[in-house]
Amino acid sequence: MSLAPLRDDLPSCLEPYLPQPPSAHSDRPFVTVTWAQSLDARISKGPGIRTAISHPETKTMTHYLRYHHAGILIGTGTLLADNPGLNCKWVPQNGDRRTPKPVVMDLSQKWRFEGSQMWELYKKGTGKPPIVIVLGEPKARETGVGYLIVDDPSVKWDTLLRRLRSEFRLDSMMIEGGGRIINDVLMEAGLVDSIVVTIGSTILGKNGVEVSPMHSLTLKHIRWWTGTTDAIMCAQPDV
Amino acid sequence: MSLAPLRDDLPSCLEPYLPQPPSAHSDRPFVTVTWAQSLDARISKGPGIRTAISHPETKTMTHYLRYHHAGILIGTGTLLADNPGLNCKWVPQNGDRRTPKPVVMDLSQKWRFEGSQMWELYKKGTGKPPIVIVLGEPKARETGVGYLIVDDPSVKWDTLLRRLRSEFRLDSMMIEGGGRIINDVLMEAGLVDSIVVTIGSTILGKNGVEVSPMHSLTLKHIRWWTGTTDAIMCAQPDV
Repeated sequence: MSLAPLRDDLPSCLEPYLPQPPSAHSDRPFVTVTWAQSLDARISKGPGIRTAISHPETKTMTHYLRYHHAGILIGTGTLLADNPGLNCKWVPQNGDRRTPKPVVMDLSQKWRFEGSQMWELYKKGTGKPPIVIVLGEPKARETGVGYLIVDDPSVKWDTLLRRLRSEFRLDSMMIEGGGRIINDVLMEAGLVDSIVVTIGSTILGKNGVEVSPMHSLTLKHIRWWTGTTDAIMCAQPDV
Repeated sequence: MSLAPLRDDLPSCLEPYLPQPPSAHSDRPFVTVTWAQSLDARISKGPGIRTAISHPETKTMTHYLRYHHAGILIGTGTLLADNPGLNCKWVPQNGDRRTPKPVVMDLSQKWRFEGSQMWELYKKGTGKPPIVIVLGEPKARETGVGYLIVDDPSVKWDTLLRRLRSEFRLDSMMIEGGGRIINDVLMEAGLVDSIVVTIGSTILGKNGVEVSPMHSLTLKHIRWWTGTTDAIMCAQPDV
């Protein structure tokens, strides 16, 4: 897949929402939550169904965001359903390539790095091997893979993120989904620094996977960008 | 309530979505569906809870839309919970005031015009008396009120709208809610001409009343407008 060009006005729009120097966040990473949703807040037509929502130009924006983060985190559902690459395909003018460290939730250890899309990209030199969050000792340790071992399946996001910073030196994390993780992290006060949401011009209907957390959330420092068919809203939780 | 000024760039943005001359729609009105939602597609925090979502400038946009429609329709829930005025507060530079005819669903005949906000506005000369959609003969006929009598509680929207055109000469209708009506009309193919959605920069949470119809819906002729804190998406159903 080659990327559409990055729209000229996006970098300045996104700039205030990009990770800040880590000193300000001594023991946890800077956290950006980002997703692409339909007008009716659905990120897919149903669990495990890959659904086209965003325009190529907002897909490029996602890669631009990935460029600016040390790590990118997704949940088990997305991992098993999408076989995602999780690398950064956007390259700045100066050719300085960078790609985030994938971090994947796989508590029940159903996923294998070998043969995955991440593995393909790693072999080609365009992606990094992941950190896998597992419950208990890994059944098999794959070459190149880092393991973040938890003892409790109901581990708190705050704890996981602090450990990603302290054990793996990831000082900025982009959380891309799926719906359950996004809804969970939005509800943990003080955890999320930036929110970047793409709204595609479609309605997916009530059977879709929705982003709508348990409770309401006030947002501040709102900025909208509009493209050919999509809008992007940047914000910060007002906590 | 006095209105915030209409933003200069809104009329040209909305123009392609405003009602067309009625000749093109011989036996049903031109239909605009419009609502204000949170990022997570909620129009209120819960059934019957009035919830602030939109910025004053997008509220003014709603009144500008009302100005351009012959009628404005709402459902029973909104009618009984909100005691809405349903008039048009926006006045053009030339002073040519206009206000739509309210049309309210009250199949079970629980509502009274007298004493309502609509009645207050009518007395002041700034609103019209409504048409009430009732099931069976009206128990009491109130002065000034028009009655659209249906025999079947599951009457089709298409039928209702055609009758509003033929019996009451309403050649353009704005449907403002609540959630159930919006979800229903979006699912009737060929019924809706324009969609105008305000997205407020807030997240209301999963217990809110949502706009997400039974099935997916493709949209065309997308246009976005962004204001201080809200975005507006204008579109047409792609049927």
